[in-house]
Amino acid sequence: MFQVTILGSSSATPAFKRHLSAQIVEHNSRLFLIDCGEGTQFQLLRYKIRINRLDAIFISHLHGDHFFGLVGLLCTLSNQERLRPLHLYCPPGLQSILEMQFQASDTRLKYELLIHELSSSDSTLIFENQCLEVVTIPLRHRIYCNGFLFRDKPRRPRFDIVQAKEDLIPVQYFGLLKSGNDVTLPDGRMISAVEYLLSPAPSYSYAYCSDTRYTESILPYIQGVTVLYHESTFLHEMVSKAEMTMHSTAYEAADIAKQAGVRRLILGHFSARYQDLEPLLVEARRHFSESYLSEEGIAIDIA
Amino acid sequence: MFQVTILGSSSATPAFKRHLSAQIVEHNSRLFLIDCGEGTQFQLLRYKIRINRLDAIFISHLHGDHFFGLVGLLCTLSNQERLRPLHLYCPPGLQSILEMQFQASDTRLKYELLIHELSSSDSTLIFENQCLEVVTIPLRHRIYCNGFLFRDKPRRPRFDIVQAKEDLIPVQYFGLLKSGNDVTLPDGRMISAVEYLLSPAPSYSYAYCSDTRYTESILPYIQGVTVLYHESTFLHEMVSKAEMTMHSTAYEAADIAKQAGVRRLILGHFSARYQDLEPLLVEARRHFSESYLSEEGIAIDIA
Repeated sequence: MFQVTILGSSSATPAFKRHLSAQIVEHNSRLFLIDCGEGTQFQLLRYKIRINRLDAIFISHLHGDHFFGLVGLLCTLSNQERLRPLHLYCPPGLQSILEMQFQASDTRLKYELLIHELSSSDSTLIFENQCLEVVTIPLRHRIYCNGFLFRDKPRRPRFDIVQAKEDLIPVQYFGLLKSGNDVTLPDGRMISAVEYLLSPAPSYSYAYCSDTRYTESILPYIQGVTVLYHESTFLHEMVSKAEMTMHSTAYEAADIAKQAGVRRLILGHFSARYQDLEPLLVEARRHFSESYLSEEGIAIDIA
Repeated sequence: MFQVTILGSSSATPAFKRHLSAQIVEHNSRLFLIDCGEGTQFQLLRYKIRINRLDAIFISHLHGDHFFGLVGLLCTLSNQERLRPLHLYCPPGLQSILEMQFQASDTRLKYELLIHELSSSDSTLIFENQCLEVVTIPLRHRIYCNGFLFRDKPRRPRFDIVQAKEDLIPVQYFGLLKSGNDVTLPDGRMISAVEYLLSPAPSYSYAYCSDTRYTESILPYIQGVTVLYHESTFLHEMVSKAEMTMHSTAYEAADIAKQAGVRRLILGHFSARYQDLEPLLVEARRHFSESYLSEEGIAIDIA
């Protein structure tokens, strides 16, 4: 399973029942949190997300609407008797902010918090497990900011067991062929492995790009991703405001999605000036038809 | 008008739709916020409280469930173009915590935040305006913690205008009499001011005591208050846990209310272990009948 649940789609301040930036990525039964605006722990409760399965948290940047909920969530995990270590990937400075608050409140977390402060302005592999990799996407914002690309690890070719059986290849040779070794059977037949290897199961990927000014520099990292979340704080009629505040418009998000050849685009990080989001969707779809609005609490299937 | 609206009644973590500690005191059209747990700005939105009228914020102590929502609220006030200065009364250390977060996010508030870090362990007058005073109540908790007593300023005696008119006292003498000066009228009558001064309108008061272990040392400060909010994290069957964590039980809160001769007691800061709060109410009422549970979002009339 590879799913994303958006917990907040509002920028800067909560508005019209929209919450602040936070998303849960579920991959192969493991949970990952991207950004953690104020109130994220309430949203996790509301949508009954079992946070004890959380393996790592990724913070894009240190604007408050993306991390003010972190310290509260970390304390709640401790109150819930979490003992398993937790990884945190974030910009420099967050460790001091957390430590100062833990110190003032005389808090000692019951689990180990492993903080990895990122500082590279190049795309970097920062996390991997058996089947998933997470790579940073350098974004253009007012302060140091990374997007995150979650992608299946490259998969091995599948073995064509049906064909092998049909060709009466003895089962004890399957392992060798599967690993790409040619074999000579007892009956003298020379068997080439490539004839029994099918193309691997497709790999899926999810790219989170928020907050960012429109920039084509991200295209190499998000080329062909399955689902792209790209911020679209404003309508394009406010492009000068977007430029000034280093945000993007719905049109620009769609333009990036089109250029990158992604399968689907999710718009988010909406300005509190928009009660009705339909105009942002219409603007994006006019340019890239597979555009969708963030819907808080609804799981999006990536694979 | 003198009212209190409780925005959060849960301790440590949100639970059963109960939120973290925060209360709005409205006094004579001015608003004051006591404590500011995570999500307070959402509660203020939900209950349509006009935060532009906020004059001052009082933080009891630096456990996260009492202040993690502060930095977000301060940013939102700035985003809403607040320009009027705001006063913050809090324990030492909060200024550094806020400044570090403003610095990391490159935030400059549009209004002046006047931070008053408190450090006295004696009850102190910390705020006053024309008609209200706020005095600290030193509490007994794991870290430095103050409760707050909001009280009407002592009122002046009222002038008995009806009687004065009946006695045919010329109106130009009313001012002198009102100020307590005896006068001699042109007809030779000697008029004593005290005969025309009625007892002043009653003064009302609200005491917020959270978080605290049961302590009789607070009695002198809360004697006879109109409404007392006293934490009651646990049922009395868990008194040893209350002792260990420096909290109080419902019975103990009632006992304090009874000894202090208050008019009404509001219980709050409930442990997340209690879904049903009725047993806490029953326990308190058995000892002090004018006990009530916190109900989030409901305004309590003090005067």
